[in-house]
Amino acid sequence: MSAQEASATDLPVKRPREEEDNGAAMETEKSAGAGTFNGGLETKEPACMSTVIPGWFSEMSPMWPGEAHSLKVEKILFQGKSDYQDVIVFQSATYGKVLVLDGVIQLTERDECAYQEMITHLPLCSISNPKKVLVIGGGDGGVLREVARHSSVGQIDICEIDKMVVDVSKQYFPNVAVGYEDPRVNLIIGDGVAFLKNAAEGTYDAVIVDSSDPIGPAKELFEKPFFESVNRALRPGGVVCTQAESLWLHMDIIEDIVSNCREIFKGSVNYAWTSVPTYPSGVIGFMLCSTEGPQVDFKKPVNPIDADESSIKSHGPLRFYNAEIHSAAFCLPSFAKKVIDSKAN
Amino acid sequence: MSAQEASATDLPVKRPREEEDNGAAMETEKSAGAGTFNGGLETKEPACMSTVIPGWFSEMSPMWPGEAHSLKVEKILFQGKSDYQDVIVFQSATYGKVLVLDGVIQLTERDECAYQEMITHLPLCSISNPKKVLVIGGGDGGVLREVARHSSVGQIDICEIDKMVVDVSKQYFPNVAVGYEDPRVNLIIGDGVAFLKNAAEGTYDAVIVDSSDPIGPAKELFEKPFFESVNRALRPGGVVCTQAESLWLHMDIIEDIVSNCREIFKGSVNYAWTSVPTYPSGVIGFMLCSTEGPQVDFKKPVNPIDADESSIKSHGPLRFYNAEIHSAAFCLPSFAKKVIDSKAN
Repeated sequence: MSAQEASATDLPVKRPREEEDNGAAMETEKSAGAGTFNGGLETKEPACMSTVIPGWFSEMSPMWPGEAHSLKVEKILFQGKSDYQDVIVFQSATYGKVLVLDGVIQLTERDECAYQEMITHLPLCSISNPKKVLVIGGGDGGVLREVARHSSVGQIDICEIDKMVVDVSKQYFPNVAVGYEDPRVNLIIGDGVAFLKNAAEGTYDAVIVDSSDPIGPAKELFEKPFFESVNRALRPGGVVCTQAESLWLHMDIIEDIVSNCREIFKGSVNYAWTSVPTYPSGVIGFMLCSTEGPQVDFKKPVNPIDADESSIKSHGPLRFYNAEIHSAAFCLPSFAKKVIDSKAN
Repeated sequence: MSAQEASATDLPVKRPREEEDNGAAMETEKSAGAGTFNGGLETKEPACMSTVIPGWFSEMSPMWPGEAHSLKVEKILFQGKSDYQDVIVFQSATYGKVLVLDGVIQLTERDECAYQEMITHLPLCSISNPKKVLVIGGGDGGVLREVARHSSVGQIDICEIDKMVVDVSKQYFPNVAVGYEDPRVNLIIGDGVAFLKNAAEGTYDAVIVDSSDPIGPAKELFEKPFFESVNRALRPGGVVCTQAESLWLHMDIIEDIVSNCREIFKGSVNYAWTSVPTYPSGVIGFMLCSTEGPQVDFKKPVNPIDADESSIKSHGPLRFYNAEIHSAAFCLPSFAKKVIDSKAN
């Protein structure tokens, strides 16, 4: 069941205020006229834009039943349907521009720093001199922006399945998509699972899996064969960081991810988490693992990017990440620690 | 402007499904018949129950404009108007029972452990052998429940302004109000500001201020004269922990609180935060200060309640707090660290 189906079934559908007074509809037609995203354009408002409050976006999903987070919409800037998912960009009243895939908020300008900085620097600051980095997903470019802060890195490959996400980000989120401007970046539009299967063994120092939730196109990125490919593509003592849901909502999924990773990665296996207000339950977790080889202690960062003055000079200061919050991210609430420690050790 | 006024102005008001099929109305009348909460009972649904989705509760406030968190309502269990605020209890679909004051969620059975354990054990585990503890607010009893874990404590005073909160908690949240059953607890129904003004100098080892937001009855609990009373009522080297809003939403309020505290408390002044999914932005902060006297290092707990086996035996295991998460709570994101450090030091 998709998020849209869930909302349509559970709730009476209202027409959004934008549609009524024609503001948003005109804006959408303008985007269509610009010809950039014609392919997937739909004239009908998607259900998730209109179920809860006219003029508000509400995020509802079977992944978090019985609750919804809503943002007031100033203007719908883009809506389209790619080969993989529904894509929406809107200007919110208080969170800046918002990117939504299949009804789920992926980033807002106000809080994206927390997610992008943590998913990138937790792995990259845990090893010395990362050189080759692979990003799976992350089509918005925010992770690239953060990887680019590391001057030791010489090659940044990114494999994103959905070109529409890349194009939309370049058009509406220039401060996020700025990551693509770095000359070290190679963009591959394709399936991350297939890409990793074909990657030469021991290629990467770090793999970052910036995926959406395990319903929809990202499903395979949470399964064992994918982790096996990651393990093979990493050098000995290389690291992976993968988006790993919310401790408050998905301990069952997390338990499975930890078990799978413990089986496959012969180095360290750790879970970290951070605060992202616009993600369900207000937090998001990360699974951090290292391969057999030189030992990695994720809790003690060895590559302090937040103290690298030349990086700060060229890329601006970090908004969220610092060495203290790196270590703190691995401290888990008791209810989660018990379960995760029993699977990770 | 109250939360209710805001919703009534911004949004079309719908009648909740419960009212239409009479289920909740009957339940409310039953409570009235029991005679416990007659005084404030209203037959009209409060605006915050019905503005967004029929059958859902939505939390909207000028304190967090442009966003709303919604919970699906199974049944309204209680609604009343005390001398101070609107009080609602409902059974939610996925967060257990929920207590709402003036339209703002105070606790849900699913995530109350994070708030209650952190606001209590951050201060009490930072000093050795706390003996006399004062709770201001906290009428639901959850902080009392946590204070009672500390066997060194001989006296627990609580000053709550609103008797209806105490009564409602005892009736609907027995696992929270269980705190009142401890024989060390003395309940004073009254104004915390006045109570502290009249408290003998140097009485308490710790004061815990479990307040609602600084609009409404808790306003004065965020102002300088109140902090001066707290400082006077604490022993040398005594500690205070006060609810201190969200880093993501209220850096301006937090900046003022930190400045005020730095002026008044001559010992340590630190800000900590934790994850609570049903609070706005998913986090809540705490201001921790110590008075002139023996030094307190809040970041290094000296009184490890999570390792106290006799306490665990008598009161059950902690669900959220542990010594690691205690220290981690003081690690702040860079955007907040900069502001807070400049005011706290």
